[in-house]
This record gives sequence, C-alpha cells and structure tokens, in this order.
Amino acid sequence: MFDAPSDAPVRPRGSQGAVRTAPGGEFDRDTAVRRRADGAWEADLSPGWAIGKALNGGYLLAVVGRALRGALPHPDPFTITAHYLTATTAGSALVRTSPARVGRTVSTASAGLYQTDEHGEEVERIRALATYGDLDALPAEVRTGAEPPAMPPRERCFSATDHPGGATAVPEMAHRLDLRLDPDTIGWALGAPSMRGEMRAWLGLADGREPDPLALLMAVDALPPTAFDLGLTGWVPTVELTVHVRARPAPGPLRVSIVTRNLAGGYLEEDTEVWDTADRLVAQSRQLART
Amino acid sequence: MFDAPSDAPVRPRGSQGAVRTAPGGEFDRDTAVRRRADGAWEADLSPGWAIGKALNGGYLLAVVGRALRGALPHPDPFTITAHYLTATTAGSALVRTSPARVGRTVSTASAGLYQTDEHGEEVERIRALATYGDLDALPAEVRTGAEPPAMPPRERCFSATDHPGGATAVPEMAHRLDLRLDPDTIGWALGAPSMRGEMRAWLGLADGREPDPLALLMAVDALPPTAFDLGLTGWVPTVELTVHVRARPAPGPLRVSIVTRNLAGGYLEEDTEVWDTADRLVAQSRQLART
Repeated sequence: MFDAPSDAPVRPRGSQGAVRTAPGGEFDRDTAVRRRADGAWEADLSPGWAIGKALNGGYLLAVVGRALRGALPHPDPFTITAHYLTATTAGSALVRTSPARVGRTVSTASAGLYQTDEHGEEVERIRALATYGDLDALPAEVRTGAEPPAMPPRERCFSATDHPGGATAVPEMAHRLDLRLDPDTIGWALGAPSMRGEMRAWLGLADGREPDPLALLMAVDALPPTAFDLGLTGWVPTVELTVHVRARPAPGPLRVSIVTRNLAGGYLEEDTEVWDTADRLVAQSRQLART
Repeated sequence: MFDAPSDAPVRPRGSQGAVRTAPGGEFDRDTAVRRRADGAWEADLSPGWAIGKALNGGYLLAVVGRALRGALPHPDPFTITAHYLTATTAGSALVRTSPARVGRTVSTASAGLYQTDEHGEEVERIRALATYGDLDALPAEVRTGAEPPAMPPRERCFSATDHPGGATAVPEMAHRLDLRLDPDTIGWALGAPSMRGEMRAWLGLADGREPDPLALLMAVDALPPTAFDLGLTGWVPTVELTVHVRARPAPGPLRVSIVTRNLAGGYLEEDTEVWDTADRLVAQSRQLART
C-alpha cells in the first residue's frame, strides 16, 4: 500500500481530515514509501536531495517519518530523533519500524533505514525513534514568549541558486527548494563569516508544494551549516537530529532560523526554529554535528 | 557482570583513565545494572528518586544510560534520547539494548526499559536511542558564544529541602540532591510565578558524589518544571528527553538553567543547560512535556 503517493490524492488520516499534502510534488514523490508484505517499507531515495555525494539528513528523516506515519495510527510526528550511522546514497532503501506503544493520543515507535552496500550486505544507515500524535486534536491555546526571527522581507534575501558560479556551484538539493538566505548570514559565502554561528532563510519547496509536518522534518536541515558562519568549511556530518513539530504550518514560505552557541571538542549543536506565515513556531529542532 | 557497582571502585573504561564515579554513593547504588546471561540488564529502581508516585525521568535515563554504557565499547553518552511510554515505578526493571553500529570513535544503540505490571505482563516503560563516545578523546578546542547563567552565589539560593512544610512537603528525590534554587525563579512557590518560564539552580548530589556524564543525565531533569514559573500546577509528564553531554564535568556544584519559550497546544519544551565549576557548558538538553 502507498502512503502519500505522488500519483493520487492523499487521504486524510486519523483526524479532522484536511488533505495533508499536495500530491504530485517532488517532495511527496521522493519521500514516498511502499509497505511490503512483511511490514517493512520500501523507498527509492532520489539523488535530487544530495549535498555533494550524501543525501540530506532532513530529506532522509522525512522518508523515515513517512514510513512511521504509515506504521502508527497517529498522523503527525510530535517528536522524532534520528542517529545517522553511515552516509546514505541515492537508490533503494528499506525502512523497518518497531512500535513501542500505541496509546489513545500518542504512539511511539523505532525505525531503521537500511541499504545494500557494494558487497551486497545490508547496512543500517539511520536509526530513529519517534512519538506521533494528531496536531489537529490539540487545543488552540498558545502562551509563548518566543518571537519570530528578525529577517528582511523575502525579496531582499538571496536565492541559494543565484550563485555567481551558476547552478552547478550549488548543492543539488538547492534546486528542490526556494531558499532565500538572510543577507546578514551569508558573509561566509564572500569570505567574511560573521562568527556569530547564525543562519536564517525564507524556505519553500521549488515546485510550490505547501509545507506540512513531514516537510518540516526536511526544513530544519535544509540551510547551509552554521559552521560556515563560524569560519569553518567542509562537511559537517550530523550525528543526531531531533525535531519537535509543534503545529501544522500555514501555507506560504517558512522562516527558518538556526543558531550555534557551543562549538567545543570537535562538536557543535544547531538549534533551529521554523516559523510559518501565521507567525507560529511550528517546529523546533536541535542537532549534534561533528566539525 | 556489574557496571559501576556500588560496592567496588569503578574501573576506568575506554580512555585516559581517571576514575569516572566515586563508588558507594546513592546515585551509583541506585543506578547500578547487572548483565544477565542473555545480555539484558537488571536494575533495582529505588523509591528514593520518586516525584510523587512516579520515578524521575532523569534518574531513569541514567539507569538506561548505564546499561548502554555496559553494552557499548565507548563510555560516555554523547547524545541520548528517551521516550517515556508509561510511568515507571520503584522495584525491579529490565533494560534490553540493541546495538545499531559500533564505530571507531562513536557507537549507537537502542534500549528499552521494561517492568512487570500488576497483571504479571511485561510492559515497556521507556524506549531510548543513544550514541556513545569518549569525552576524554575529544580535542580541547572550545569556541563558544555561550555564557554561564547569571545566578546569585550558592549561599544566597534556597535549598529545596528548606520547605516551610518540612521534609515531607518536598518530593522524595529532593533528599538525594543538594539543590539550591535561584530566588528569581521560585516566586511560584509563594504564589507569584514570574511567568518567564525559567528555572535555575545550583545542583549537587546530597552525599557529595561528584558529577559525571551519567549524573548529568539526571541533572537535566532534576529541577521543578518551568511550567510552575508559567503559573501552571500539577504534573508535567515528559514525552521525550534528549541530552547532549559535551564535556566531562569538573568537580563541584553544577549550575542548571532551564527555559521554556513555547507553551502551545498543551505541550511545552524545556531547554536546559548545565555548567560546571570550570565555566564549561557540559550538557544541553531539551524535553517535550505535556501540561
């Protein structure tokens, strides 16, 4: 059975029933999973979400998140953690899920994403743990002291694909996104990092597909690493990424703000907030990465 | 075999070899685990770490963390996530671990904590996922913008056990700790919460046992909930708790600072920092809790 296929409208699952994803977009096609007879989930991981050779951790989290969505009675990832074991490459992958508890309001399960390596052996790429619920079933009460990030309007930000080196100079994943970087956090691209460890951007999907909870799992990991703004270069592999989805995002571009406060011992944390067009804090995430 | 038993000195594991825990303390005794023939770990959960009827989530994370420490070749939890499924009670428990990958510098495993319920059936209380490494093997480089929390000196803070209602008016766990709450964050105890969602304290173990990485897993969850400072009362059950241990703490009292920015839809996050006497940020954690 298909969960969120790319060629058919998505059925509302588990609640009030707004259609959860606009079908047919690149994100839905590239994160689609198929349930096998044994309950495992097959995925065809797309090279379109690569950063260099490896696939983006947020994209992969969305694939795992979609398999968990199919394996659990609740539709939305309230909190999901992934540990990245080995670099995942484009091509076929298998997600195995292992439910821990299914409750009335939330349910919890582990998952592992596996690929077959060059020696024909199955290798685990990612292990995840998540609790799902129904965002539409939550009370509307909001009592927050959090403020949206101060950012210039979208039209005054820099498109990630407006690179002087042309389209081939940006990661393949950038072409899936409508990413507009805050001028205050792109000094690194001109050899003048701010050294504040910040990264901010307006973010949407390039094909106009509106954000939803699964897309938020990708959004928290879609910006350039804050390490660049701290004067570091090169790959910053994610060891662990935890995302809390706090509300279903309203349509329109997201504002993503990332801050790193503690670079020490060769590791750093990236704290990410995602705000929607209704000025709601729709997701919070933290990742531990190696420099 | 015993891992960190309470009746024998703890062997240095995996690195430079300073003794990692002072043996014989309440924390080491109450978090001790015994490996069974089948590789599962037995624990005797102590009522001494109860908050009301349930055992504290940080204490339980330390028990799970000790089992994982025994199951993996690396000694220190770099990042560990627990999802709390059902309330854990004092008495015997079993921790089953499932390694995902054992690498040169880090290793990753899942774990489940189980108890036998009143019907004699095994029920999973906690599912966890962690990556372990060796803090002593990390480079000394620190490039952080993080500052220790502004707090009055310990002697000007309020001991959690100095309650007008006497010893029985405070949670049992408070007697295991030397907890000195910042006067700025205890207005709630006098019916005047600051509504800032903050909680700060100096924290040590009551018996003088010095902090180590496993004790940090308890420390991040040892203060009263920030929800009290937001004017809420009653239990705030943790759905998920993730802890990053960033450095081995120096001896002496820890400074623990917790902030909640987003209370919405019946959930809130608690962001915790733990600082040691050397002014190093030794742990960061975030939990998702239900109000």
